[in-house]
Amino acid sequence: MEKLATEAADAAIASLAGWTRQDEKWIAGSYRFVSFPAAIAFVSQIAEVAEAMNHHPFIGIDYKKVTLRLTTWHAGGLTELDIRSAERYNEVYQASIAGQR
Amino acid sequence: MEKLATEAADAAIASLAGWTRQDEKWIAGSYRFVSFPAAIAFVSQIAEVAEAMNHHPFIGIDYKKVTLRLTTWHAGGLTELDIRSAERYNEVYQASIAGQR
Repeated sequence: MEKLATEAADAAIASLAGWTRQDEKWIAGSYRFVSFPAAIAFVSQIAEVAEAMNHHPFIGIDYKKVTLRLTTWHAGGLTELDIRSAERYNEVYQASIAGQR
Repeated sequence: MEKLATEAADAAIASLAGWTRQDEKWIAGSYRFVSFPAAIAFVSQIAEVAEAMNHHPFIGIDYKKVTLRLTTWHAGGLTELDIRSAERYNEVYQASIAGQR
């Protein structure tokens, strides 16, 4: 998995609802829920996706808000794996009835 | 629930394995696990404790490491609620066979 060129990464991130680039190496996305248990349930769901992809985001849970951060360590930056992971997390969020971001 | 005096808070924190004071308002504790799913399972367990106590830690999950941070917003600092929460989280961790810190 090779590091994406900056332009390619920017184009991919632009199509990811709720996600932004934090710096050269990281993208971050936040999700809001109606309750703390709903936020925890989402984390359990995306954890299964992460484990299956063997690509693990940093996860922050601040009451009803979950923030995910992604990078690809072995590539030293962003790769397709990060983009695909973010897409999958957005799908999990959309599939939940947990509320609005 | 009243804010603890600095000395009382320090004495309580000293008896909490794995926990340290971050500043006047926050304490933090970290837990290590044998796998990412084990870390997620721990988070689900302590989330139930947090919801039952209606006192929610900030939770950070960095692969196999979970960091919890506690403060009591309405008291503007640390209270017995934070100390009791940390004690409960330590009990949950001890009860798990997830590995060593």
